[in-house]
Amino acid sequence: TRHGRRLSRTMAVRHYTLDFCLSAPGDCATIPEGLQSVFQEQEMTGTVHNTEGRGYLATFIGKNGRFAVLRVHPHGLVTVDLQSCEGEDQSQVNDLLNALEEKMKVLLHSNIKRTKRLPALLRGAGVDRYWPTADGRLVEYDIDQVVYERDSPYQNIKILHSEQFGNILILNGDVNLAESDLPYTRAIMGSGKEDYSGKEVLILGGGDGGILCEAVKLKPKMVTMVEIDQMVIDGCRQHLRGTCGDVLDRLKGDCYEVLVEDCVPVLKKFAEEGKMFDYVINDLTAVPISTAPEEDSMWEFLRLILDLSIKVLQPSGKYFTQGNCANLTEALSLYEEQLGRLCCPVEFSKEVVCVPSYMELWVFYTVWKKSQD
Amino acid sequence: TRHGRRLSRTMAVRHYTLDFCLSAPGDCATIPEGLQSVFQEQEMTGTVHNTEGRGYLATFIGKNGRFAVLRVHPHGLVTVDLQSCEGEDQSQVNDLLNALEEKMKVLLHSNIKRTKRLPALLRGAGVDRYWPTADGRLVEYDIDQVVYERDSPYQNIKILHSEQFGNILILNGDVNLAESDLPYTRAIMGSGKEDYSGKEVLILGGGDGGILCEAVKLKPKMVTMVEIDQMVIDGCRQHLRGTCGDVLDRLKGDCYEVLVEDCVPVLKKFAEEGKMFDYVINDLTAVPISTAPEEDSMWEFLRLILDLSIKVLQPSGKYFTQGNCANLTEALSLYEEQLGRLCCPVEFSKEVVCVPSYMELWVFYTVWKKSQD
Repeated sequence: TRHGRRLSRTMAVRHYTLDFCLSAPGDCATIPEGLQSVFQEQEMTGTVHNTEGRGYLATFIGKNGRFAVLRVHPHGLVTVDLQSCEGEDQSQVNDLLNALEEKMKVLLHSNIKRTKRLPALLRGAGVDRYWPTADGRLVEYDIDQVVYERDSPYQNIKILHSEQFGNILILNGDVNLAESDLPYTRAIMGSGKEDYSGKEVLILGGGDGGILCEAVKLKPKMVTMVEIDQMVIDGCRQHLRGTCGDVLDRLKGDCYEVLVEDCVPVLKKFAEEGKMFDYVINDLTAVPISTAPEEDSMWEFLRLILDLSIKVLQPSGKYFTQGNCANLTEALSLYEEQLGRLCCPVEFSKEVVCVPSYMELWVFYTVWKKSQD
Repeated sequence: TRHGRRLSRTMAVRHYTLDFCLSAPGDCATIPEGLQSVFQEQEMTGTVHNTEGRGYLATFIGKNGRFAVLRVHPHGLVTVDLQSCEGEDQSQVNDLLNALEEKMKVLLHSNIKRTKRLPALLRGAGVDRYWPTADGRLVEYDIDQVVYERDSPYQNIKILHSEQFGNILILNGDVNLAESDLPYTRAIMGSGKEDYSGKEVLILGGGDGGILCEAVKLKPKMVTMVEIDQMVIDGCRQHLRGTCGDVLDRLKGDCYEVLVEDCVPVLKKFAEEGKMFDYVINDLTAVPISTAPEEDSMWEFLRLILDLSIKVLQPSGKYFTQGNCANLTEALSLYEEQLGRLCCPVEFSKEVVCVPSYMELWVFYTVWKKSQD
């Protein structure tokens, strides 16, 4: 499969962008003619398109699938796109971009307010490096290998290798946890301010094994983890050992048990039996980010879990969970509203934490029962 | 200027990409005809280009400067580019992309191995959101405002506002420090393991005031900071107060002094006078990332600073500095080589730290004089 990956990598296209913001749009007229010679020197054949008066647009086709677009917008923005197959000599492409940049300087002198050349987008590569943040920003990861990929009955599971973050678990396209992300696990366990010794702990989700691994080190009485997806456990046991250690090698240990089940019936059973926990750690999913109709059931699910969790929580117990990225203030407010609508009145605090592989700050909640006195 | 920013923002172009990786390239033939109707429904006029047998390439021009490129690569990659001016209705663009995605599903069924639609690139915006990492990855920041921008005699200085990181200092296009980045300051001061009380401290660079601000809290005997660029100090004093507090409001305090000077002559003077420090903190610049000829002088400069710093360091003293991002292993090795070429033999340790606004892990060094016994 390694060879297969290599082969499919050569399919990729590198997409370069080079943009110029001009301070005097009037100069735009001189640009097309000035830049044409640069493309010609690279044996690229141009076609000028009719834009019905909205600036200048030309496309250029060169050797080996090379393709360029030159646009001069009437308001003073010049954009160049250059696509080149990954197997081709990229230094020629860089030469062309350098030549275009030089030519623009000659043509427009100090009239260029800003020149921006981004790292090339790698499109269609065998190993996908782009995993947008929860707040919708484009970020490229240093991912060089697909380590594990399965479709379970519940979700698409990927484990990808990052040079700096170690292996990263990605569920349905969302970065979940990397081997570098102990700060996530610490935060969702109360940031080191709790005493777990002799305590009853319930983990909802947490299939990567990070919380379980850290919890069992703290001499708890018993940790019960309820994870629905055996394939997540299998993938992480093999490839996320920097996070889970050997704790997932067995589903039962001296002071822990992993139930591979849907947590809702399990929580209901615990509630009926009157079983109580000192800590309930909800690692199931991030807070839904919208109130669109299709999300309604998400909020209901979230409140159901919250209500059941509070039911099985000791009066002095604590419930920990992740919220969402710090920028999604609306989603976080909606979550906090839900906390005011539980069967049992609760109070909460929150903390903003930097999780290395997330490339955005993340909010964690601590929830506890309001004292009745 | 706020209004000015707004105006210039409408200049921007949103560049959408939508890519399909196919498992059976043979199906490519049916795609152009299938997708053409989708563009036509959006009143986009197409031109088919001659690619000399290297797949299919068509460009489409629509209303209000809308422009699209459809490429079908013979090896089974289909790329769609769609550019739209920022002021235009983006929901129409999303409708078009959705329609293309739907149509592809109908045409190719289960033959689509992967569909990738990235967050749109914002090109030519008044506020630039793309600041690549030291290891060359494309990352988008949640930047919404230019707070400060000057060209000093030494560098281009920008302070940009990020929703989650606070204000960010950017020097010559490199993210230097954000108000969220106390972990940087902590790391370059020895990660909380040092006792600064009663100590003589020398800071080289550090114009953002972060190290100075933290150091004066620790009751040192005296902190001397040597920063060459008054404009960095001015910008940070005004706009990076989450980092520097009020420490830059005066250049001299009870236990600190800021010298706005080139550090090399200052270090030479200290060395001649026999002045010694318990801690020397070099916050000047990251390790050069190449050994290209033009970088040679960088390495020489770096070794000069190192040699002078070690000269003014107490035998029991410590020298702290940043290295570079964890992925640039070659640059880091070159730096470590330099440490073996100093006038005085030294030992070192390093630590990898997550600095929130960097979006990459960063290496910090501690260097000390080898004991002579």
